[in-house]
Amino acid sequence: MKNWIWGIDIGGTNTVCGLVDSKGNINNEFTLKTRDFENAEDLVVRLCSEMKVHSTDFRTVSGIGIGAPNGNYYNGCIEFAPNLKWKGRIPLADMFRKHCGLPVSLTNDANAAALGEKHFGGARALDHFIVITLGTGLGSGFVCNGQVVYGHDGFAGELGHICAFPGGRNCSCGLQGCLEEYVSARGIIRTMKEIIDSQQVVPLPSFAGREFDMLDIQKEAQNGNPAAVHAFEVTGTILGRNLALAATITSPSHIFLFGGIAHAGELLMAPARKAMNEALLPVFRDKITLTQSHLLGRNAAVLGAAALLLNDVKSGKQN
Amino acid sequence: MKNWIWGIDIGGTNTVCGLVDSKGNINNEFTLKTRDFENAEDLVVRLCSEMKVHSTDFRTVSGIGIGAPNGNYYNGCIEFAPNLKWKGRIPLADMFRKHCGLPVSLTNDANAAALGEKHFGGARALDHFIVITLGTGLGSGFVCNGQVVYGHDGFAGELGHICAFPGGRNCSCGLQGCLEEYVSARGIIRTMKEIIDSQQVVPLPSFAGREFDMLDIQKEAQNGNPAAVHAFEVTGTILGRNLALAATITSPSHIFLFGGIAHAGELLMAPARKAMNEALLPVFRDKITLTQSHLLGRNAAVLGAAALLLNDVKSGKQN
Repeated sequence: MKNWIWGIDIGGTNTVCGLVDSKGNINNEFTLKTRDFENAEDLVVRLCSEMKVHSTDFRTVSGIGIGAPNGNYYNGCIEFAPNLKWKGRIPLADMFRKHCGLPVSLTNDANAAALGEKHFGGARALDHFIVITLGTGLGSGFVCNGQVVYGHDGFAGELGHICAFPGGRNCSCGLQGCLEEYVSARGIIRTMKEIIDSQQVVPLPSFAGREFDMLDIQKEAQNGNPAAVHAFEVTGTILGRNLALAATITSPSHIFLFGGIAHAGELLMAPARKAMNEALLPVFRDKITLTQSHLLGRNAAVLGAAALLLNDVKSGKQN
Repeated sequence: MKNWIWGIDIGGTNTVCGLVDSKGNINNEFTLKTRDFENAEDLVVRLCSEMKVHSTDFRTVSGIGIGAPNGNYYNGCIEFAPNLKWKGRIPLADMFRKHCGLPVSLTNDANAAALGEKHFGGARALDHFIVITLGTGLGSGFVCNGQVVYGHDGFAGELGHICAFPGGRNCSCGLQGCLEEYVSARGIIRTMKEIIDSQQVVPLPSFAGREFDMLDIQKEAQNGNPAAVHAFEVTGTILGRNLALAATITSPSHIFLFGGIAHAGELLMAPARKAMNEALLPVFRDKITLTQSHLLGRNAAVLGAAALLLNDVKSGKQN
């Protein structure tokens, strides 16, 4: 019986691999430094050899699922990923097939997170939901009619790059006012700095004289510091308004928040829920469950990558 | 052989029926006044009797497809439609089944338009596209992975009610700044009035002393009147910016414009295309075809309603 799938999460810093069973348990996890590999194929060769070593019995492995930045499900390539050394279009899935001889599926990290939620998290019974991944940036995976929305080119679900504020903050993508410049780790840090600079609120003693990060703001807010609470209110309100927009298009039953800021829970979600419902048509209002991912704190990227392959095997796209 | 489908388009004023063949030809068309019927079941009884009269052989009819305002695909009901006399939730599909004994499918007019485009129009080979219906308001039908996006409750695709301008024009839905208050027949009329009132442009002699409508603005613009051209530029720019937003979520290959203002063609589409591409991530830019519906000028609502039933029969949802 082929009961195991290797889930691989390729990030700018680390590449994490885990052997996932059908219940979503992760075993035999190992990590490589992505940046140690000058070209992608060297990483693939090393991963394939490590996976053989780390599999109790490689013959019981049914395939490999990969989540990667700018991963394109349709062609199995990483395409022009700004956070990776490897430039251009990298045919990663083909490289894995060549070196392992197993079925391989690849997508971007947010789509993998959505599939992880569907197979192993809070969306098992759901066919219409959104997963928002809040890290350095903001990613999103949309599931409609039980299927991930990839779009015609494999790049659908870029909610982080819809315009939240015309003429707003400069985004690394070249546009202005992108949602992820407001709702992400770097977004809330920038908002916190603006709040401090505006001097309309009390300063934050614990931040004095050093750079602060998202966790510092979260701790301050949890301790009741009004400026930090305000930073979450501002961030949550912007998030909620733009979730309303996405929900007006796809009408999901649930929206799951995953990653860094999602750990702040109601600090972020309460203002987001309020703003979302205020901006929704009456027909959608108070019907959408906005909640933390059920995989929060687990290695959702590895689970999601494994779920991708599992999904493709089930639907006959891999055999 | 059951080769025919009755397509029914229920509107606030008229209910139009046509017998549609598999190639999208409409025959034996007839119209009833929707408002003549105090309750929905009276209309259904009359329609069923008329359809029998108007069918050459009723035994060759495979089913009935219905497009209706606030039509919910999942339960076959018209739900709380503001433009119809009949209040509350009307189980229209069930009424038709009872009185005709045929398979029946129902959805809203914009989703029907999207299916019409897929079966009989410009989207036959497409699986990822959007149809925007521009009438008194703005409707939208999203097709992802070859399927209409209905959402968890049947109400997905309400692009007309995303917020184009926070705190903007009051919308009949109770929200402010909804897209359809800017991009629709009534939207462009309002914009034209604002342009005239602002006196930044030359007045429009042909409008003097009377109410003007959307066609008047279109004619003036086609004659080169700069104020009317400007009204289309403003409207197209707002449309384009918000299409970018929708495209960033679902990444369609094509966006089709249908209905009233769509007849203005490049007057509307040129500024829309420009604004859309400016607001898109580089990865999406200049890849989306924004074009008029290929059903423009035909009875797309009747065709779309028939396509709905055809689609359900093909996918085994009706038999």
